Amino acid sequence: MSDKVKIAIDAMSGENSPKKIIEGIEISLKSNKENFFYLYGKKDLLEKEIHKKKYIKKYSEIIHTEDIILDDESPLTAAKKSKNTSMWKAVESLKEKKSDISLSAGNTGALLIISRLLLKTVTGISKPALAALWPNQNNLNVVLDLGANIECDEKNLTDFACMGSALFKSLFENPNPKIALLNVGHEKYKGNDVLKKTFSILKENKMKNFEFIGYIEGNHIMDGNVDVIVTDGFTGNIALKTAEGTANFITRNLKNSLNKLSMLLSYSSLAKFRSKLDPRKYNGAIFLGLQSPVVKSHGSTDSIGFAHSINVCNKIVKANLIERIKSNLITVDAKLDG
Amino acid sequence: MSDKVKIAIDAMSGENSPKKIIEGIEISLKSNKENFFYLYGKKDLLEKEIHKKKYIKKYSEIIHTEDIILDDESPLTAAKKSKNTSMWKAVESLKEKKSDISLSAGNTGALLIISRLLLKTVTGISKPALAALWPNQNNLNVVLDLGANIECDEKNLTDFACMGSALFKSLFENPNPKIALLNVGHEKYKGNDVLKKTFSILKENKMKNFEFIGYIEGNHIMDGNVDVIVTDGFTGNIALKTAEGTANFITRNLKNSLNKLSMLLSYSSLAKFRSKLDPRKYNGAIFLGLQSPVVKSHGSTDSIGFAHSINVCNKIVKANLIERIKSNLITVDAKLDG
Repeated sequence: MSDKVKIAIDAMSGENSPKKIIEGIEISLKSNKENFFYLYGKKDLLEKEIHKKKYIKKYSEIIHTEDIILDDESPLTAAKKSKNTSMWKAVESLKEKKSDISLSAGNTGALLIISRLLLKTVTGISKPALAALWPNQNNLNVVLDLGANIECDEKNLTDFACMGSALFKSLFENPNPKIALLNVGHEKYKGNDVLKKTFSILKENKMKNFEFIGYIEGNHIMDGNVDVIVTDGFTGNIALKTAEGTANFITRNLKNSLNKLSMLLSYSSLAKFRSKLDPRKYNGAIFLGLQSPVVKSHGSTDSIGFAHSINVCNKIVKANLIERIKSNLITVDAKLDG
Repeated sequence: MSDKVKIAIDAMSGENSPKKIIEGIEISLKSNKENFFYLYGKKDLLEKEIHKKKYIKKYSEIIHTEDIILDDESPLTAAKKSKNTSMWKAVESLKEKKSDISLSAGNTGALLIISRLLLKTVTGISKPALAALWPNQNNLNVVLDLGANIECDEKNLTDFACMGSALFKSLFENPNPKIALLNVGHEKYKGNDVLKKTFSILKENKMKNFEFIGYIEGNHIMDGNVDVIVTDGFTGNIALKTAEGTANFITRNLKNSLNKLSMLLSYSSLAKFRSKLDPRKYNGAIFLGLQSPVVKSHGSTDSIGFAHSINVCNKIVKANLIERIKSNLITVDAKLDG
């Protein structure tokens, strides 16, 4: 088992868990048997689900936890209420080196707080960030931060650029990803002071690990010309959710506009279109900057979406993301003092 | 002519001007003859266009201006380079009370600077804002600020709420619009200090002119449950452009997914869908907070889009927007001192 990727799963969080968790594992095992799953949650419920799919037993171990963090609990209260929740124990297994990566579909705020409480940050990183994959005209890009840090300085944004490029390289075959800063214009004089300072740092440092291409505006995020888009957690969260809302608005209205016959006639190409936009295919936000990686699945995704986030976990561990982050970092403090 | 709405048009700015400007006027005159147009720009070019549509002469007057502000000029340089640009003169006509409202499809930054240089702010407003219309499930809502102010405090955001509701009431039949603050969550503890302070001010003040319903997240902007969405200019600009980029991404991919026969079969319903999303229908961003109203048309819109922005100008003047703003304002300073 030592050569397996050991994934610690909070099996009680998210809609329709633990059923979707076990079904997600089943789907992932069809194409990849490299993972071993530590399942944290109510033993009886998990055994009942696994009973139906006995061969999963060979790839998993159940660790009973009594308590559950709910989605609507305040993150701080939830994180502190018990050390015997499925989420706490799953993250704690990283600290104890029992597992390589942790995965939860639960309360994002609580997961961030628990992860920061239990796991140290990578030396040089003061604020961890939440990164996610975003579809574009060519493939997928990485956007961060998506809400872990409401306010950020130039040191944080520079760290995000370094961490985001390490993540991109871990997930895709690309030795030199293109990085841009999200701003209200591409001109140098646009934006706030933090952005201008970050621009200078990234421009002046000779990057071995990524190419800084300057500012990018919101309408170009999905063009496919940039691999990693860096922003503070407030702006990133607004941008991600606005894109989600716009996509929902358009597809809902479109559905009402196509009659059944034309949908049938374009069936296969419409299926491709839906597949390209299917949010399950890029399910899995990654919490970057800690000594061990933590992945957050969307709470409302189904077993297919959860299987995708298992795949993200596998790639991150095999690509040795944490070491890549360490070797990518720029010492910004020295630069700012100089 | 005194009962006409007098619109001062910067006739040289934007793509394909002055041709599209004159064609836009022609379209607007078909449904509405209440407007009179002061056309600022190169006399020979304007006369050449109007020569083809002689009856427009009755509704317009050309004022020759020698210089033009280009789209790619730095706003500050452009605003200061000459007082004989079509943009400068059109805004100046407001100061001189020759016209009621000014309309330009040119350089947004330069228009903001010139407007602030020439026109005083409404008493009590320190920062004017750029507002625009955004389609939603039911109709349209107002979003502001969209980029005039990169950094805002609670006084600014409260002013934006008051001005945005006045604008909404001027454009639509609704005595009590619903206002929300754009944030990363709907819970009270979410967001930065400025948002929390603004939330308190809007919650504690008894509003006669609008209903404050709290925070809204990016994915709900288009749901149609809120009429006015308030945010700082940085966030608003990112949100607007991200929505635009997402809409372009989806429609581009969709086009490639539907074969010709199915497009024909759903022709009329697809036409309705396209019409609902047609950005020309909500063309016209409004610069709020000055003693006179200034409207910015999208530079790349066509004559139909420009005609829509003329319609916005007409509504604003007839609804007496500036007086509505004045009567809507909350004295926030007193509240903050108390």
